[in-house]
Amino acid sequence: MEQRLQQLSTYLQEQNIDVAFINSPENFFYLTGFHTDPHERLLGLLVFPNADPIAVLPGMEKGQLIETGWTYDVIGYADHEDPWALMKERGVKEAQTVGLEKQVLSYGRSQSFFSLFGEVDVKDVEGQLNEMRVVKDVEEIAIMREAAELADFGVKVGTEALREGVTEMEVLATIEYELKKKGVAAMSFSTMVLFGEKSGQPHGNPGDRTLKPGDFVLFDLGVVWKGYTSDITRTFAFQSVSDEQRKIYEKVKEALEASLAISKPGTRIGDLDQTARDVITDGGYGELFPHRIGHGLGINVHEFPSMSHLNDGVLKEGMTYTIEPGIYDPAIGGVRLEDDVLVTKDGYETLTKTPKELRIIE
Amino acid sequence: MEQRLQQLSTYLQEQNIDVAFINSPENFFYLTGFHTDPHERLLGLLVFPNADPIAVLPGMEKGQLIETGWTYDVIGYADHEDPWALMKERGVKEAQTVGLEKQVLSYGRSQSFFSLFGEVDVKDVEGQLNEMRVVKDVEEIAIMREAAELADFGVKVGTEALREGVTEMEVLATIEYELKKKGVAAMSFSTMVLFGEKSGQPHGNPGDRTLKPGDFVLFDLGVVWKGYTSDITRTFAFQSVSDEQRKIYEKVKEALEASLAISKPGTRIGDLDQTARDVITDGGYGELFPHRIGHGLGINVHEFPSMSHLNDGVLKEGMTYTIEPGIYDPAIGGVRLEDDVLVTKDGYETLTKTPKELRIIE
Repeated sequence: MEQRLQQLSTYLQEQNIDVAFINSPENFFYLTGFHTDPHERLLGLLVFPNADPIAVLPGMEKGQLIETGWTYDVIGYADHEDPWALMKERGVKEAQTVGLEKQVLSYGRSQSFFSLFGEVDVKDVEGQLNEMRVVKDVEEIAIMREAAELADFGVKVGTEALREGVTEMEVLATIEYELKKKGVAAMSFSTMVLFGEKSGQPHGNPGDRTLKPGDFVLFDLGVVWKGYTSDITRTFAFQSVSDEQRKIYEKVKEALEASLAISKPGTRIGDLDQTARDVITDGGYGELFPHRIGHGLGINVHEFPSMSHLNDGVLKEGMTYTIEPGIYDPAIGGVRLEDDVLVTKDGYETLTKTPKELRIIE
Repeated sequence: MEQRLQQLSTYLQEQNIDVAFINSPENFFYLTGFHTDPHERLLGLLVFPNADPIAVLPGMEKGQLIETGWTYDVIGYADHEDPWALMKERGVKEAQTVGLEKQVLSYGRSQSFFSLFGEVDVKDVEGQLNEMRVVKDVEEIAIMREAAELADFGVKVGTEALREGVTEMEVLATIEYELKKKGVAAMSFSTMVLFGEKSGQPHGNPGDRTLKPGDFVLFDLGVVWKGYTSDITRTFAFQSVSDEQRKIYEKVKEALEASLAISKPGTRIGDLDQTARDVITDGGYGELFPHRIGHGLGINVHEFPSMSHLNDGVLKEGMTYTIEPGIYDPAIGGVRLEDDVLVTKDGYETLTKTPKELRIIE
């Protein structure tokens, strides 16, 4: 955390930002190691170019922050106190240029923050935090490995719960039950279990659809584990598979493998999408792959970078992201396969390990 | 929805607001009937004092909005398009005064919105939407009744899963499993199952603590159902109860009943908190009741109003909120009892029906 705070301070020096106000629970966690979300109550971190940071949070959480190892100043406020007034008293009142997370901080809070000072220029610091968070350190990778292993376990539980007549929601409930018993407090997004034609909806909602022979079964799920996320998709066939279903499956698998194959430091990020898209388009299914190839993965399940074909950034060692091509046929159903990928020194490793060969569940 | 949109337009006329931009998925749902959360993609509703509203959302969701019954204009944008530019093309470019949800809209989006116009004055419309949402109509109440019934069911499942040696997480997993099988897609917040001394932490996290005879067992849970929430807390004793535990339990129950007894149109909201607090303080436990008595309940599980002793608003027929007094002793554990309350014409009804008499689970 020390090093991350130092890196942000250095950035503020370079950008001539006098003070930055960090408001998102995710960036607060990234910079302090303390995970909390006090909802309507204010959470914040004041970071300066040449002075120690100050944390601002509800007083009842001050003790927990300090237990996490926070050695700097803390403004713990009571419900009847105005945290902005306390910041001003603590000397936060002079700045020409301020930094904030432009896409996160609410308009109302931005006005409260600006009111501590006279007229100020406003700069964004979210982009810098995104850039810092995109490359994971050894400890983060170790946690993400565990999170991915739990996602693999979720898929395994799901396949074992399949039988003719079971509903999507029943299978979903079983997966989450077994994960919760392993200590998973939260899924990283709403678990998706889709059967048959419903797997052909990229954003379908699990419901009462019962499982029938010949259905595709699509699982898309992930967990939050020690503050980090995982996100896996696998598609299976139930009892039988048609030639066209097999053709779609193999094309998606080929697209995923093509995109994995170029995952290494120096690759243009947009090429991951383009490579998979070319495979699917050449196979005649281009119209049926309507979404980007993937997204960054870490503290947020969707984080920087957005892996579209337009992204001119390049892969770096330590980056983690998803690759998730899909082909969705509204009539016969859809296939999506998704791995969590870590860029290594000279290639990649998939953190998710569930096999990708077409499997027909009996 | 029609009537709600009309009510908001009338407010804009009164306030001389030329256009309001509604960005929160909750208020979008309230005004359109369509529930969606496109996360980093823009969702919005432009509401005018004297013209029809315009919805703005990702193009792939346009069809679903129209299916919901939306008959007004829609700007459905593709990922490569700038929705703000499309609004400007559609003629949204003249305003002296604009309205927005100050605590919701991000600073970055507020700047994009303002850039459609010249210099503008900014007014808040969130307060008005809170005021509108606070009184529920017949359809909303019918749904909230169902949501509360599911919460009651969750508590029932939880009590049935109790046995010596079971962990908090195992019981939690069982509750959510049974609710998911009934079609509940999401809990309204992280389910809380706390045993023994852990029930003495107002914000404890369920974990590996195993159940022992003489423990308090605290359940705090709720569901999201057809866009509306429920939120119940019940506390039980496992196998035996000490005199001091019983004393605490009865005092919390007395506080809840005192606060319920004055729940009717015209009562000052702050008095609900004060009444319960007086009961607990007179019993000698004032220091062990550190939080407000409750919160509004509806589309959000925590919504307007905040039921603290400072609230000078008054109850109106159709309001729904929680009452949830608690006494937390770090050594012997805590008791919290919470009902979802509907204000009726001349009194109240609790939507949650689980009995509140002290129950010792064998």
